[in-house]
Amino acid sequence: MNGTIAATKWPESVTICEVGPRDGLQNEKTLLTVDQKVELIERTVEAGARIIEIGSFVHPKSVPPMADTDAVARKLKQIEGVEYRALVLNLRGLERAEAAGLQKVKLTASASRAHSLANINKTPEEVVRGFSECADYAAAHGLELSGAISTAFGCPFEGRVSIDQVLAVISCFREIGVHELSLSDTTGMANPQQVYEYGMRVKTEFPDVTWVLHFHNTRGMGLANVVAGMMAGIDRYDASFAGLGGCPFAPGATGNIATEDLIHMCQEMGVATGYDLDKMLAIGRSIQQMVSHETASFVLKAGKNSDLVKTTCDK
Amino acid sequence: MNGTIAATKWPESVTICEVGPRDGLQNEKTLLTVDQKVELIERTVEAGARIIEIGSFVHPKSVPPMADTDAVARKLKQIEGVEYRALVLNLRGLERAEAAGLQKVKLTASASRAHSLANINKTPEEVVRGFSECADYAAAHGLELSGAISTAFGCPFEGRVSIDQVLAVISCFREIGVHELSLSDTTGMANPQQVYEYGMRVKTEFPDVTWVLHFHNTRGMGLANVVAGMMAGIDRYDASFAGLGGCPFAPGATGNIATEDLIHMCQEMGVATGYDLDKMLAIGRSIQQMVSHETASFVLKAGKNSDLVKTTCDK
Repeated sequence: MNGTIAATKWPESVTICEVGPRDGLQNEKTLLTVDQKVELIERTVEAGARIIEIGSFVHPKSVPPMADTDAVARKLKQIEGVEYRALVLNLRGLERAEAAGLQKVKLTASASRAHSLANINKTPEEVVRGFSECADYAAAHGLELSGAISTAFGCPFEGRVSIDQVLAVISCFREIGVHELSLSDTTGMANPQQVYEYGMRVKTEFPDVTWVLHFHNTRGMGLANVVAGMMAGIDRYDASFAGLGGCPFAPGATGNIATEDLIHMCQEMGVATGYDLDKMLAIGRSIQQMVSHETASFVLKAGKNSDLVKTTCDK
Repeated sequence: MNGTIAATKWPESVTICEVGPRDGLQNEKTLLTVDQKVELIERTVEAGARIIEIGSFVHPKSVPPMADTDAVARKLKQIEGVEYRALVLNLRGLERAEAAGLQKVKLTASASRAHSLANINKTPEEVVRGFSECADYAAAHGLELSGAISTAFGCPFEGRVSIDQVLAVISCFREIGVHELSLSDTTGMANPQQVYEYGMRVKTEFPDVTWVLHFHNTRGMGLANVVAGMMAGIDRYDASFAGLGGCPFAPGATGNIATEDLIHMCQEMGVATGYDLDKMLAIGRSIQQMVSHETASFVLKAGKNSDLVKTTCDK
């Protein structure tokens, strides 16, 4: 398989999961209020999002911008067909999520052994096996779990993370009953050839898993990696409104791919997303005002293709 | 063919054409000296470039930063295997290029009828047929020609430019004997599905042409479009050092894809480029000093994947 690309089709549609309220805002110096977060989340739903990561239930001191996730979750209106989820790292977080009214959480573990050991002195496999109490609790309480594998393509400690290592972590997630997994390029090190190779491989080895890809645009390859994911037949992508987010190892570097940019590319490609791009652009502009700086969104800056045409023709 | 992607392989190598001295610097407010330009071009050759667009022979008043292209061309050392070329729009430009010692020029025409009529009151076909005197002159004087088709994917006046329109312009170029053509996404409107479709189509219809793709990263799709081009089997890409360049219709927007970013992506994908990335990054930093502003290069800002690993391991 190495080096070859199988015949395929462009997807008819993709699902874009909005992770800005968590992966974006956790990197911001400006702390938004609960009401601001709720407003952004509700406007994002109104713009078409159906899966939104609203925050994380982690220790407030370790990630201060996420300390109010309980309050945010409690204020959100439940809407048929809309999934609010939050990131948790342990049973305590899961209990907080449940108490705040969430039905779904995302458990996260690093694929990189060196990263995981340096961070929390456990191997990735130990981390995921440690989630079994969360899995038991979720089963008993009717909660839904997904999993995220961070540094799934590369890691500042190890360089490229091998597909075998990623498969081993996936196996552990499957053992505890998680069947929705995202592969996260936490530090923006993935490349399209690797995304295609890893995507094809995980789909072949674990055909019962729903796959999500999570890219950062740190080195400009974010949307290129989405294209490679599409070629591998994966149709769920995380993105962050206004392109919020960052890379803990490259201060000032670009963060997650911007939701607006991904919607715009898909629309131009004839791939349905269910989003209203103009509404997302308006949200992006609100966010830039709230955090008081420009963000790494191309379409917020340059405008849509169709704006360009309209503006020029109006002249 | 629409919607489907044929089985293929990732390329073993690609050729990156450095267009920064022309497409990058023509958009800069800071005018570099002839010596600065020559230094940048010679360092770029030293870093591995084998095709460099050194400037344009157009009217000095219409593009002041290119007024010294004659002097730049005269100062460059001829090096075996290195192609210096310049953009020209007519016989006068071709004669100037020849007088300055160049062996190759690039003729450019817009694919968009509306754009071409608004700009110079001629249809694209009339523009290319008008190049026949250049073709005759080149044949008589042993000069080599290539062609560039600007707004080949989208245009601010027309929106999407149809493949039939692009094919018509290509036909005209073939009629006057040009067999190397670049399709240029002048305003950053191309998307990967379109690039793949157009790439496959032009290759099928004109199998004797050497194809080059030229992308701007205006809406974040630059490297994604390169991946789509690779899937269509095209192995030549223009790029601009430091990511210099812009979009005449979106002031402040990102310009050409950055040479460093493209080399970095290719290296990570296992696609050979013949470039020394560290040398190109050093050139990028010099350029940022010369033009006194940050430029749209991701790897200049975030560092290479391998830097990240090294830095972290050294801690």
